[in-house]
Amino acid sequence: MQTEGRTQFRTGLPDLNPAGARGGIAVVLMNLGTPDRPDPEAVRPYLVEFLSDPEVISLPRGWRWATPLLARLIAFFRAKGSAANYAMIWTDRGSPLLSISNDQAFALERELGESARVFVAMRYGRPSLGSVFEEIASEGIHDVVLLPMYPHYAGPTIGTALQAAYALLGQTGLRWNVHVLSSWHLFEPYLEAQAAVITRHLAENHLSPEKSVLLFSAHSMPVSYIRAGDPYQMEVEASIRAISGRLEWPSDRIRISYQSRLGPVEWLGPSTEHVLKELAAKGDRQVAVVPISFTADCVETLHEIGIEYRKLFEHELGGKLHLVPALNDDPGFIAALRALVERTIGGMN
Amino acid sequence: MQTEGRTQFRTGLPDLNPAGARGGIAVVLMNLGTPDRPDPEAVRPYLVEFLSDPEVISLPRGWRWATPLLARLIAFFRAKGSAANYAMIWTDRGSPLLSISNDQAFALERELGESARVFVAMRYGRPSLGSVFEEIASEGIHDVVLLPMYPHYAGPTIGTALQAAYALLGQTGLRWNVHVLSSWHLFEPYLEAQAAVITRHLAENHLSPEKSVLLFSAHSMPVSYIRAGDPYQMEVEASIRAISGRLEWPSDRIRISYQSRLGPVEWLGPSTEHVLKELAAKGDRQVAVVPISFTADCVETLHEIGIEYRKLFEHELGGKLHLVPALNDDPGFIAALRALVERTIGGMN
Repeated sequence: MQTEGRTQFRTGLPDLNPAGARGGIAVVLMNLGTPDRPDPEAVRPYLVEFLSDPEVISLPRGWRWATPLLARLIAFFRAKGSAANYAMIWTDRGSPLLSISNDQAFALERELGESARVFVAMRYGRPSLGSVFEEIASEGIHDVVLLPMYPHYAGPTIGTALQAAYALLGQTGLRWNVHVLSSWHLFEPYLEAQAAVITRHLAENHLSPEKSVLLFSAHSMPVSYIRAGDPYQMEVEASIRAISGRLEWPSDRIRISYQSRLGPVEWLGPSTEHVLKELAAKGDRQVAVVPISFTADCVETLHEIGIEYRKLFEHELGGKLHLVPALNDDPGFIAALRALVERTIGGMN
Repeated sequence: MQTEGRTQFRTGLPDLNPAGARGGIAVVLMNLGTPDRPDPEAVRPYLVEFLSDPEVISLPRGWRWATPLLARLIAFFRAKGSAANYAMIWTDRGSPLLSISNDQAFALERELGESARVFVAMRYGRPSLGSVFEEIASEGIHDVVLLPMYPHYAGPTIGTALQAAYALLGQTGLRWNVHVLSSWHLFEPYLEAQAAVITRHLAENHLSPEKSVLLFSAHSMPVSYIRAGDPYQMEVEASIRAISGRLEWPSDRIRISYQSRLGPVEWLGPSTEHVLKELAAKGDRQVAVVPISFTADCVETLHEIGIEYRKLFEHELGGKLHLVPALNDDPGFIAALRALVERTIGGMN
């Protein structure tokens, strides 16, 4: 019947577009980025690219010309120390953020089945968004799901990733059906997956609320961004409330802090460092830190929490710090991403 | 519990973002456009804008500089005739395409409920996409569904609309969650709505396949576009097959044609004019024309089919032409749009 119909409505023209419709779906997991190697020569250009983004260092209007200079200056002074930090967490598979992102893409692609390709794209460094878009275009895919791997919206993370994506789509004339999935900080399957990862880690390490504090540590942000309307703090705290409600852990043994400050402006607090000292001063000797704003382990979780804050809390303050892993390729998290993508794919077909 | 949690995790900072998260959803119904008035002074700039789009008149690479000149030249010669055509279909409410688009937006907004605002944006003329984006931004909405009102993808319709949207998003730095819904030519509720509108019209006019031919007339396109990979013809014919399967009308009494050619290149055929003459020559005296590629009645349906082709078929060929209305604000069609949007909204929350 289908075939008869097809014959019936042929126009007499040859079949001009035999390749068929625009084929398949591309899912792009977007993350921040990583240098190619843990040495100053590779870290310096990565830092310059990162710090030159006006969404990352927002100078007053009259001073924006100074952004590239400032970026180079900071990169010059920080490259060596930053490279040393990366060196401490580097693995046989290279950058943890990149290898974990690739694991996530592999697992999600396997979950989604044959019609979807999953790509990793970094806002800074490689693989660049431009190179990934080129690959998608070369495969003739026109339905693209952009999935920033941050549960909480912030200008310097999701904002800049979308800005780069829209600019590329506009400049290169790509007429794709684009779907951006960036509002998932209260998406049930994500909350469930995060709660399960925490619960598992607490159980495996025999941690109890009587002896341990659960500390959610989120990446900080200049307070001026929040004042200007960025929903980051609100979304982070909403996630933490929703996740805490799924844990068997009393709320007075749960704390929240903000890490990874940079520069002299006022940042969201309290700082993770401050809270760790406060806990030690009150006599708490065990803490489990959940890197709540990260979905893949990276220099901020593995080095900053796992090495730097651990040194502070264990060596200087005499406690024991447990670092809860990021969601990484946890099957529950991959299933959550699958659910997020499939709802959208459902809307496209 | 929610409130307690909120208190528990307050950071001590004042509530910096009391306006709450990015509020609500904007749905943008995108269509081609219309002049402001049916006179040559208003039609000329509209035609210049339309014809200056390199997706509409695609000149060879070395000749692109000539596009604005050619646009002005064609607009100069066509403005008077085009204005006369518009004048014949103009209503008390102004341009049919615009007033029908506003009806669609109103009906869809009522269906979607309070959390959604629905806007009409035109690729050429007013309201411009830029002005609509400004309004959305001023309302603090960050979740935007772009819905080109063409069921079938073509570069000169959906392609250019998306190009304009992405360029605006990139230039203006709008970091919205954007969802593009342009793959709905086989979306079941759309097919059902289109079949129901056709069935109703046939019944109301007591048309039977013994005496009448059902002719699907789609907007034509240069064959070179199809050869370059545009899926338009394939999607149009796939829709027609799927809709025909829902009608109680024998497939040998169904025809397909392409209308609205412009310029001297090779266009998709057979032309609507040609098929009408062929039907008359074979002795068919009744035809019901379905403007398949249009979702709102406009100059191409009301004037080109309803006046021009009617004159040909009735006055010159002695038959009777029935123009099936476009989907317009048919409740079934609005419900289909609602289903399309809600699936996507579901994926966003």
